[in-house]
Amino acid sequence: MTTIGLINPGQMGASVGAAATHSDATVLWASEGRSDATRERAERGGLTDAGTLGQLVKDAEIILSVCPPSEATTVASTVIRHGFKGLYLEGNAIAPGRTHEINTMLADAGAEMVDGGIIGGPAWRKEAGTVLHVSGPSASTIVDLFAGSPLHLNIISKDIGAASTLKMAFAAYTKGSTALLSAILALAEIAGVREHLAHQWGETFSTETARRVSANTAKAWRFVGEMEEIAATFEGAGLPGGFHQAAAEVFRRQAEFKDQPTPKLDAVLTAMNKDN
Amino acid sequence: MTTIGLINPGQMGASVGAAATHSDATVLWASEGRSDATRERAERGGLTDAGTLGQLVKDAEIILSVCPPSEATTVASTVIRHGFKGLYLEGNAIAPGRTHEINTMLADAGAEMVDGGIIGGPAWRKEAGTVLHVSGPSASTIVDLFAGSPLHLNIISKDIGAASTLKMAFAAYTKGSTALLSAILALAEIAGVREHLAHQWGETFSTETARRVSANTAKAWRFVGEMEEIAATFEGAGLPGGFHQAAAEVFRRQAEFKDQPTPKLDAVLTAMNKDN
Repeated sequence: MTTIGLINPGQMGASVGAAATHSDATVLWASEGRSDATRERAERGGLTDAGTLGQLVKDAEIILSVCPPSEATTVASTVIRHGFKGLYLEGNAIAPGRTHEINTMLADAGAEMVDGGIIGGPAWRKEAGTVLHVSGPSASTIVDLFAGSPLHLNIISKDIGAASTLKMAFAAYTKGSTALLSAILALAEIAGVREHLAHQWGETFSTETARRVSANTAKAWRFVGEMEEIAATFEGAGLPGGFHQAAAEVFRRQAEFKDQPTPKLDAVLTAMNKDN
Repeated sequence: MTTIGLINPGQMGASVGAAATHSDATVLWASEGRSDATRERAERGGLTDAGTLGQLVKDAEIILSVCPPSEATTVASTVIRHGFKGLYLEGNAIAPGRTHEINTMLADAGAEMVDGGIIGGPAWRKEAGTVLHVSGPSASTIVDLFAGSPLHLNIISKDIGAASTLKMAFAAYTKGSTALLSAILALAEIAGVREHLAHQWGETFSTETARRVSANTAKAWRFVGEMEEIAATFEGAGLPGGFHQAAAEVFRRQAEFKDQPTPKLDAVLTAMNKDN
């Protein structure tokens, strides 16, 4: 029986950890220093508490890293410091350049990495359609872990960086276009032409856009780092990073809506106007 | 009977000039130094050749400026140099800051400006749905010119700059999202994950996106300036200009497809790869 360590049981991570229990593996998490909300998610997912991160690393043959992009390197270096020599899934929304750096760190420490990119929402049910794309020489080991689980797996290639890039390319449009529409609505509001823009767009597109921009704001704070990773991905490929540098700035101005109920569009546009 | 001067009978301009003939006005154009293709469009539109720009300015009570954004200021200063004192429609895709500058130039010379923004394709038929949005104290005079014509008119406000901003805000999404999708496809191609991205997007969205990116390339060269104007519009309102600075760069890399038949997507993505 395989022992897997999950870092960390956030909204997405807990569902990925739960999915890994379908193969009869024991999936560990480390409760030390974590909140009650994290404990609830871990218990919902059937995860086993290893207590400390050190104990988790000691006991796990495979580690799954699912965390905010800004923490990805810290998580990997902490795991290395605790002496990990097993297989490490780097499952975060980071630029392929950072994926390669983490891969080198792990290889130098005697561990092995699989590159992963998760597309979709938390994977509690198969119908959610969430896909974990994986790449790297040992990608098939990760696929086997999730057999029969609600998480769909897709092997891209043997290249480290490929799964990260696919994740970046996909989020570049979903989140990037939401940021663009937010900025356009803020411009129209500041210039006093929002009503005319809505009329020119037509009712269906205007209503859907307002809903989408407002509904996104609760998560905007944590998209800032992801937009910066996407900008770095474009620049690393010799393409312009400006779309997502601008998107990062848009989401930064919406950070005050963190975990709040969906605000009215007027409130979102007021927050985005730097002069307010 | 009103005499109107049109500068210039391009793809859009010729249709706007033709629309102005519906009110029984004489619509002048100036053939000096223009191409055969321009003459054909002017004749199709029922325009009258004034010969030189100087003669056109002398005879016209109203001038309509419909030209590439990079030429808007030059057109206005040329008209002023020829002594124009009438009503000037600034109908170009320019940032409101430039609209205000041109307005000041015209006012100082004893002429009056109406701000205009055209949304849609050439307005040969009413069904095209092309709208000329206008703003400024004398906007209604422009509306009267196009009564019964295929061009739809919409008065936004008495504020110079409002029509320009509306045009910028609208094009920011139509053209900006096409540029973003172009860059994403180029990224996926460079990283070797284009097939996986297409699969994740689904067939409908992938096919439509490929069609849209390819079909846009023939016009990309002339969207560069417009994207720069949109970036300036965002920055002038205290919002990030990066989306459209990046879009300008994307279209710059597609400039080689100017007026060409629609290329295959592979050729477009090759052109966008700076390393090729």
